[in-house]
Amino acid sequence: MWRMRVYNFSAGPAMLPTEVLEAAKSELTDWHGSGMSVMEVSHRGKDFVAAAAETEALLRDVMGIPGNYRVLFLQGGASGQFDAIPLNLTSVGDKVDFLNTGQWSAKAIKAARAQGLDVEVLADEAASNYTTTPAAGSFTVDQSAAYLHYTPNETIGGVEFGYVPDAGAVPLVADVSSTILSRPIDVASYGLLYAGAQKNMGPSGLCVVIVRDDLVGHARPGTPAIWNYQAMAESDSMLNTPPTFGVYLLGRILAWVQDAGGLPAMADRNRAKAEALYGFIDASDYYSNPVAPDSRSWMNVPFLQARPELDKAFVAEAGAAGLTNLAGHRSVGGMRASIYNAMPLEGVQALIDFMADFESRNKGTR
Amino acid sequence: MWRMRVYNFSAGPAMLPTEVLEAAKSELTDWHGSGMSVMEVSHRGKDFVAAAAETEALLRDVMGIPGNYRVLFLQGGASGQFDAIPLNLTSVGDKVDFLNTGQWSAKAIKAARAQGLDVEVLADEAASNYTTTPAAGSFTVDQSAAYLHYTPNETIGGVEFGYVPDAGAVPLVADVSSTILSRPIDVASYGLLYAGAQKNMGPSGLCVVIVRDDLVGHARPGTPAIWNYQAMAESDSMLNTPPTFGVYLLGRILAWVQDAGGLPAMADRNRAKAEALYGFIDASDYYSNPVAPDSRSWMNVPFLQARPELDKAFVAEAGAAGLTNLAGHRSVGGMRASIYNAMPLEGVQALIDFMADFESRNKGTR
Repeated sequence: MWRMRVYNFSAGPAMLPTEVLEAAKSELTDWHGSGMSVMEVSHRGKDFVAAAAETEALLRDVMGIPGNYRVLFLQGGASGQFDAIPLNLTSVGDKVDFLNTGQWSAKAIKAARAQGLDVEVLADEAASNYTTTPAAGSFTVDQSAAYLHYTPNETIGGVEFGYVPDAGAVPLVADVSSTILSRPIDVASYGLLYAGAQKNMGPSGLCVVIVRDDLVGHARPGTPAIWNYQAMAESDSMLNTPPTFGVYLLGRILAWVQDAGGLPAMADRNRAKAEALYGFIDASDYYSNPVAPDSRSWMNVPFLQARPELDKAFVAEAGAAGLTNLAGHRSVGGMRASIYNAMPLEGVQALIDFMADFESRNKGTR
Repeated sequence: MWRMRVYNFSAGPAMLPTEVLEAAKSELTDWHGSGMSVMEVSHRGKDFVAAAAETEALLRDVMGIPGNYRVLFLQGGASGQFDAIPLNLTSVGDKVDFLNTGQWSAKAIKAARAQGLDVEVLADEAASNYTTTPAAGSFTVDQSAAYLHYTPNETIGGVEFGYVPDAGAVPLVADVSSTILSRPIDVASYGLLYAGAQKNMGPSGLCVVIVRDDLVGHARPGTPAIWNYQAMAESDSMLNTPPTFGVYLLGRILAWVQDAGGLPAMADRNRAKAEALYGFIDASDYYSNPVAPDSRSWMNVPFLQARPELDKAFVAEAGAAGLTNLAGHRSVGGMRASIYNAMPLEGVQALIDFMADFESRNKGTR
């Protein structure tokens, strides 16, 4: 049976470029003529070592990562880094500052406290049900803090910072799981960036950490070796067996990003998609987006309809029309369209067309 | 270009069943008619939840895992568990016993010490350059120890226990990365089994932990949430995003094992392969295996040739003949053939034929 690929609005694991999946498929049992899958070769063999080095080189090139930053390919996801960052960057009792803009920030805060840190939350957007970000300049970073942590984009609330917080001389640490590769980023503004791969970078099971040299080498005793930044940096992330298929696929995705024009082109593409969808929602009196306009995410667009009793019907009918995974997060309700790099503008236009049609069929029957 | 699949003797990541890879390939862009890859769907969606549950059910069925054991799908590999096991099963200062039969045991010991445990090594085979296992009954487990840890099969030395150590009432903890699914195992003899997937279970990046109920729920404060056995058991291993492609592929591999006759059939197949290869080596006066006969591994067969200056030529010529990844580990030298479940008897026979030919071409030229 032949089927079209669908437009998949999943928040993560998420849609991947069809071209990348087709290429991976074509060599799944025979990787560049080796007679083996990339999954079957030793991570210490010259072929895989070269592939991993190429992935890192592509990431450095695409993101413009300065030479004084290490790139680590780790396991355990961004959630693992919620613990690993305190273990690597602090001692018990150290002061750290956080901005809390959603469920992912909150989880990072909880883990930092569990690792014995003195956490101060400089701004807490819980009161708005996480539909806002703090205004630039509305908080002051304690210059004795070990770092300032924030979440540039919250996938559940669909909330995004429109600016990079000023932390002064304090290292800025950011969970960029849902925005990495979606637009240019000034890596040098950060002490540490980390991201689970399963939104813009590939399959789940791979976590990328980009960390400035001076923050490496301070791990607490007992920090698990597989998360010890120094040990992993010194072993090219191969202290233990890396998630080889994920590293390979990230390389293919980076080449796809580069071929498409790099991060400036991704930004154009993502801005256009977001503007189209928010524009349609704002022009409608049937659909609405709950997020403050200056804090709207390019990547995750939650939306409500005037008749919430039809949410299940919306999701089911959209799925039947090839627009999948549009159910909203249970904490927000309604629908959510995640429109990462791999989602083409045509997919967003198809969603808008469906939304207009659904509205026309249901609005008048109130 | 069309190429045959090769016989891949890699120690891990290792050869996978061609049938499994072909099936994964056929649905890589369209998983059972969804129009999406299994890599692209939400781990919390009903399709993936069902796939993960089926993988666990298959593992329970194939291994005969009793109902009072939890099955966890984690990240960070077996190396991650070197830290996670002390964090989950002990308090700082607790006594634990270890058997040291190779480099993997030694790494587990090092991590246990780093987690503040009072480690006693009951038997240390370093003096034999890790070519032996301790005799049954030659060591006594401290009944106040939190657990006895051992490595049933050491992939580097090619050394394997021919028996299950008697730990009395002390929980027995085993790193079964290289033997899981290779033969029947009495799970009830163990408190905890753990294994990286990349030998007999699939791609790297997935770690399976099988742990008895009474050992769950004792994690130290600060144990990373993604390794907290209780938190992961209560969330069906979905506290964070699991390595979804690995879980999916493990399910396919388990179905392949089951279709082939389950673990008794795997044992027959693996015994036959090992007997053929060791039989040939023992009958040769050109090749030798350094391991004590009662401690020889079914999975990893290191071998030396009378003319070690030809090791590179052996590996290169074997590779050209479609017998890949035969270089020995740098700490042992010579060659190593890893013959996990996916290696057919025909592959071992092809290796033996090549070894005989290589010997005949080189032996007389000394």
